[in-house]
Amino acid sequence: MQTLVPLAKLIEQFRRLPGIGQKTATRLAYYILASEKEQAIALAQAIFDAKENIKYCSECYNLTDQNPCAICCATERDRHLLCVVEEPQDVGAMERTRQYRGVYHVLHGALSPMEGIGPDDLKIKELLHRLEGGSFEEVIMATNPNVEGEATALYLSRLLKAFDVRVTRIAHGLPVGGDLNYADEMTLSKALENRREM
Amino acid sequence: MQTLVPLAKLIEQFRRLPGIGQKTATRLAYYILASEKEQAIALAQAIFDAKENIKYCSECYNLTDQNPCAICCATERDRHLLCVVEEPQDVGAMERTRQYRGVYHVLHGALSPMEGIGPDDLKIKELLHRLEGGSFEEVIMATNPNVEGEATALYLSRLLKAFDVRVTRIAHGLPVGGDLNYADEMTLSKALENRREM
Repeated sequence: MQTLVPLAKLIEQFRRLPGIGQKTATRLAYYILASEKEQAIALAQAIFDAKENIKYCSECYNLTDQNPCAICCATERDRHLLCVVEEPQDVGAMERTRQYRGVYHVLHGALSPMEGIGPDDLKIKELLHRLEGGSFEEVIMATNPNVEGEATALYLSRLLKAFDVRVTRIAHGLPVGGDLNYADEMTLSKALENRREM
Repeated sequence: MQTLVPLAKLIEQFRRLPGIGQKTATRLAYYILASEKEQAIALAQAIFDAKENIKYCSECYNLTDQNPCAICCATERDRHLLCVVEEPQDVGAMERTRQYRGVYHVLHGALSPMEGIGPDDLKIKELLHRLEGGSFEEVIMATNPNVEGEATALYLSRLLKAFDVRVTRIAHGLPVGGDLNYADEMTLSKALENRREM
């Protein structure tokens, strides 16, 4: 059978992306070939540009196109409050609440012995370094509410006992707009346990 | 909220791909940013290269990196037999059978009044031109076995009455390894209608 090397290479490259299998990669590659040249070049260029211009902030390790990042530079942010998250995406999620006015620290993952991710694979050394130098009063553990996230929060909270800071964890409970009947037992137990005066 | 222009642009470009929504585009963009620079550049380069080097064959309109394409150039192919397909992918499907030794003509679509695709949007003029010049004895309509494909095959078969060629249509019937019980009525009717001596 006739094989087109540039097409085969493009399919192979698409296949490396997460959640993209052989069929989807093939479909995307043929779509690229059938599309306007400008559109295809725009995608290639966007990949180049993003990779070239976006780096990690040397303070909080969030993605940024300036160093330190816009949040670390902003004068109106509370520099006594530090929010620890797993991934850069989580900073976006927190920012969308428009509630949080402190700064961040991005770990770039969570502890996971199953996947061989230990403390040295995360930005934990860098977190401790910031706490030594900074004037933080509270550190909010906003790692994900799953096994890995909980383990990471617990591990960090123990490490942070050495510092004179309050360590807090974001609350577990029922999601807003949720239904008691459809909540899992763990979530409902936590919601009951963390009940508060009205 | 902080927005990174190169990241937003990359998400937007991924979103333009078929079957990729906001969530998947965001996931892919963050994946690109977290991946090795070499891998990201390889994807961008593959898009550039494919777009730069793959053109349409001026004879059969299949995708090719040489002109005429490898199949049109091949001396061992039967130049009396022409197979009409909708898309370049369909040539690959036919070739994988290792049964067909003729040449191809790619229409780049099927007639679809619903989507506003008429005869002028397909490579039909080019097909007629080839039939005028060529020495074809048989034209096999291998458009898809759906409404648009059937309509296209019927339309072309009428046009081709003007030429001294046999026009055939690939068979409808039960798929190999299928189950009578699960076959739809149309397919089973066609399978019965097209029964042959054993």
